[in-house]
Amino acid sequence: MGENDGSEIIEHHVEEEMEKKCTRSHAASSSFLESVSPSDREGHSGTQSSHRLLAYSDALISIIATVMILPVAHTKMENNEELRESVQLLLTTKIAVYLMTFLIVTVAWAAHIRLFQVIVRIDDCLALLNLACMMLITFLPYTFSLMATFPEHFLGILLFCGCVMVMGVIQSVIVLYAFSRPFLLNEQIQISENQTYYKHHILKVIMRVPIMCFFASIFSFIFFQLSYVLLAIVIFLPYISRSLKWCRNKAIGQVEETPDSMLFYTYLPNEPLSKDRVEAFSDGVYAIVATLLILDICEDNVPDPTVVQKQFGGSLIAALQVYGPEYLAYFGSFATVGLLWFVHHSLFLHVTKTTRFMGLLNTFSLAFVGGLPLAYQLTHEFPHNSRNELEAIQISCVIIFFAGIFQLAIWVVALYNEQETLHPYVRYGGREHIFMLAKLSLYPCVALGTFFLTCILSKFSASIFHLMEITVPFAFLVLRLLVRVGLALLRLVFCPDRPDHRVIVEEGDDETRVPFNALVT
Amino acid sequence: MGENDGSEIIEHHVEEEMEKKCTRSHAASSSFLESVSPSDREGHSGTQSSHRLLAYSDALISIIATVMILPVAHTKMENNEELRESVQLLLTTKIAVYLMTFLIVTVAWAAHIRLFQVIVRIDDCLALLNLACMMLITFLPYTFSLMATFPEHFLGILLFCGCVMVMGVIQSVIVLYAFSRPFLLNEQIQISENQTYYKHHILKVIMRVPIMCFFASIFSFIFFQLSYVLLAIVIFLPYISRSLKWCRNKAIGQVEETPDSMLFYTYLPNEPLSKDRVEAFSDGVYAIVATLLILDICEDNVPDPTVVQKQFGGSLIAALQVYGPEYLAYFGSFATVGLLWFVHHSLFLHVTKTTRFMGLLNTFSLAFVGGLPLAYQLTHEFPHNSRNELEAIQISCVIIFFAGIFQLAIWVVALYNEQETLHPYVRYGGREHIFMLAKLSLYPCVALGTFFLTCILSKFSASIFHLMEITVPFAFLVLRLLVRVGLALLRLVFCPDRPDHRVIVEEGDDETRVPFNALVT
Repeated sequence: MGENDGSEIIEHHVEEEMEKKCTRSHAASSSFLESVSPSDREGHSGTQSSHRLLAYSDALISIIATVMILPVAHTKMENNEELRESVQLLLTTKIAVYLMTFLIVTVAWAAHIRLFQVIVRIDDCLALLNLACMMLITFLPYTFSLMATFPEHFLGILLFCGCVMVMGVIQSVIVLYAFSRPFLLNEQIQISENQTYYKHHILKVIMRVPIMCFFASIFSFIFFQLSYVLLAIVIFLPYISRSLKWCRNKAIGQVEETPDSMLFYTYLPNEPLSKDRVEAFSDGVYAIVATLLILDICEDNVPDPTVVQKQFGGSLIAALQVYGPEYLAYFGSFATVGLLWFVHHSLFLHVTKTTRFMGLLNTFSLAFVGGLPLAYQLTHEFPHNSRNELEAIQISCVIIFFAGIFQLAIWVVALYNEQETLHPYVRYGGREHIFMLAKLSLYPCVALGTFFLTCILSKFSASIFHLMEITVPFAFLVLRLLVRVGLALLRLVFCPDRPDHRVIVEEGDDETRVPFNALVT
Repeated sequence: MGENDGSEIIEHHVEEEMEKKCTRSHAASSSFLESVSPSDREGHSGTQSSHRLLAYSDALISIIATVMILPVAHTKMENNEELRESVQLLLTTKIAVYLMTFLIVTVAWAAHIRLFQVIVRIDDCLALLNLACMMLITFLPYTFSLMATFPEHFLGILLFCGCVMVMGVIQSVIVLYAFSRPFLLNEQIQISENQTYYKHHILKVIMRVPIMCFFASIFSFIFFQLSYVLLAIVIFLPYISRSLKWCRNKAIGQVEETPDSMLFYTYLPNEPLSKDRVEAFSDGVYAIVATLLILDICEDNVPDPTVVQKQFGGSLIAALQVYGPEYLAYFGSFATVGLLWFVHHSLFLHVTKTTRFMGLLNTFSLAFVGGLPLAYQLTHEFPHNSRNELEAIQISCVIIFFAGIFQLAIWVVALYNEQETLHPYVRYGGREHIFMLAKLSLYPCVALGTFFLTCILSKFSASIFHLMEITVPFAFLVLRLLVRVGLALLRLVFCPDRPDHRVIVEEGDDETRVPFNALVT
């Protein structure tokens, strides 16, 4: 089979590469190989690719990041209550908890990525240590919601800090273990002269957070406000230290850093972030969010046979019609999340390198995506043409708009450094440039349009919203055609302005075709 | 960075391979390339690797497969009620629904794998069609629970059959679309002479199910029992037709099949199943199951401040102590699921080819894993030393046992055809053979041991169970040591019997080291 052929070819080259790597590391570090005991060397053969461990970790973390949307989604709105008030009530606690959890879990995830960019191979021991670390990460949302419910009680802070401290200890053990078996490390560190420097640098960065949490947990007994300040500093520490360094550099002149230390744990906005893991994490979040509503439907919306007999005279169809809006909300949210995933997928297909800043924007986009099912559920919960319904629809539009605009922002950021981060096809003047722009701006534009239309034609808000839901998938199907028609129209209007630009694009086609084919496999 | 270096090398070879493939397909099917219109050829450049689409589909399907365990897990046990009775009540409906949903969703998943082993590249249109298909798959569990709650009503059958029929139509459209753009297909079909034969064969297999569902939906109005019979036939159709064919072959002698038709859609037990996708699906299920309890804890176990003030005199710690068993259940189930994932991961690291039968055993193992959180929750819900508690603990042991034994069964099945399916290290006489056996049999043995111990020492059942939970992770950490000690002991006991066998294993070490290193990257 062609597929198997392909993978065989790849595997074959991987084997070659590994052999090369093995011999190289053998030559470079024969001194250490001689120093390890035979049993350690046997351990060497027990090493494994870390790929699947990371995929599993990504799946766990993406579930945990989105879990705190459930308490928000399960808050039932009362019809006689004003939406504005209940939304404000939600905003103050549950949504804040959700957003903060999302932020904190993605910070932990970024730390995990950083760690496993240094450690590229694992063995059984590291796999088990990583599972212990995952268990603590999955417990973080709960400690966080305790903190939000009892902000003045020390227990929430203590539990949170305890988890972070134990995680720090486990991560340090992982680092020490990996540096004691250098064949587990990134090749660059493996052959580097100053391995010890790396070890100390990484340990220093890792232990910074648990030490601050240790102080925060002590202050939680004495003066809990200070604990929160410390925890806030922990999260924004890299940004703060970065901007301080930047200010210092501006003030006293550029200080040259050692090129070696620049590679790992730099916290620079253009520090590379594993593209595979960003994709895996995003896939996890999109998948959970797309199915959130069906989970509820499966559990709650199967009517009891006795109820059907009593209230609906045995008519199952009549009983299910009560749940009609919920099905509609499910299909609407699944379609919207699915299409946002589709846009994300198209974008990352053309991204060749992911940076830290792009990862941050991606996190923001995903945080809004997580709120989508809630928004969709709201749109169908209120009586037709009520003010609540209008506001729920407008909130949905705002959430879709922000989810889409942050995806667009990723692209814009990537364009600033397009030589490094983007495939030639979608760079300025590339043949897919305008098509990609259209794909990325479709949802923000449609959401904005729907928002303003519902402001003007508030009576038909529900119809406009449903029409939007139905037309958008078809718009994506015929988008290539639409873009071509749009370009033709633009050329008609501004005909003498830029005929040459179009020609350049056309000429560029054949040259760039082969690399694109190679990229997408 | 070494990691990036590695991926660059792979990418480089992928590029080469793609170029080769492109030129080859160009040469082989230049006639079709000439026949397509320019706009179609432009569409060619819009093709994408299907990798991420499949990963996202796997994530969605794994969530949906496990979702029906939620209604089971949320059924609260009454303390004064006998566990046996309530479990029987559960068994009849909710657990049956869960198991059947798991089975049906995995059947749909297997069909999806089969389809995308034929179609190896996608474009925007296929991606959108696939999303529509996913939306229908995620709706299946709900239709199924409707069927279980109202078995005599036609609506459940009708909805289920409707979904399956629409899915069949979408899949047929996907096949027709892909065959009209042959560059999307598997290379083997792409260069094959009898493409049309393939197309008809695949369409025939795909449409078989919707057509039977069409008849089932008609019979649901007239004679619903027949509908269920038809639906059962649909699921077991491949097995039935296979065994019929086998019987016929035995009776009238071996009939030679065309080798071409053997490659895809054969439904033979040793039909290859994409290993990546089996891993991705399993990862999804393990991740969801590991976090099921924390989802509940995050939503339900944050006490209300007013309740804490009133019932516990403002003592948050006292209020949280009520939830103590739930935290214990969470950590226990997370650890067990995590370690079962670890065993699965170790096994599939040494599996080189996944067959359909192995996939089936994997599905059974995963179905039991899905029940674990429920079992763990039960163990902590009953008063200490009650008969219910004992039974809950024994049910947990049984579930762990079956989850582990099916993993072991995968290995045993793989050993039957070890030349094709297993890496030399874990074959008979390989250096990791005994270690792998120990890893795979640890959980079944411990579960069985705990089960019988709790039968004898029923008074200490809870302590025995907790001890088991705590020791197993450490047992995995020192397993390599334990196996070595065990082997040494065995050699001591049977000293003159097999000294040569050990020597062979030792000698085999150096020869097999390089391929193993290559495999694990």
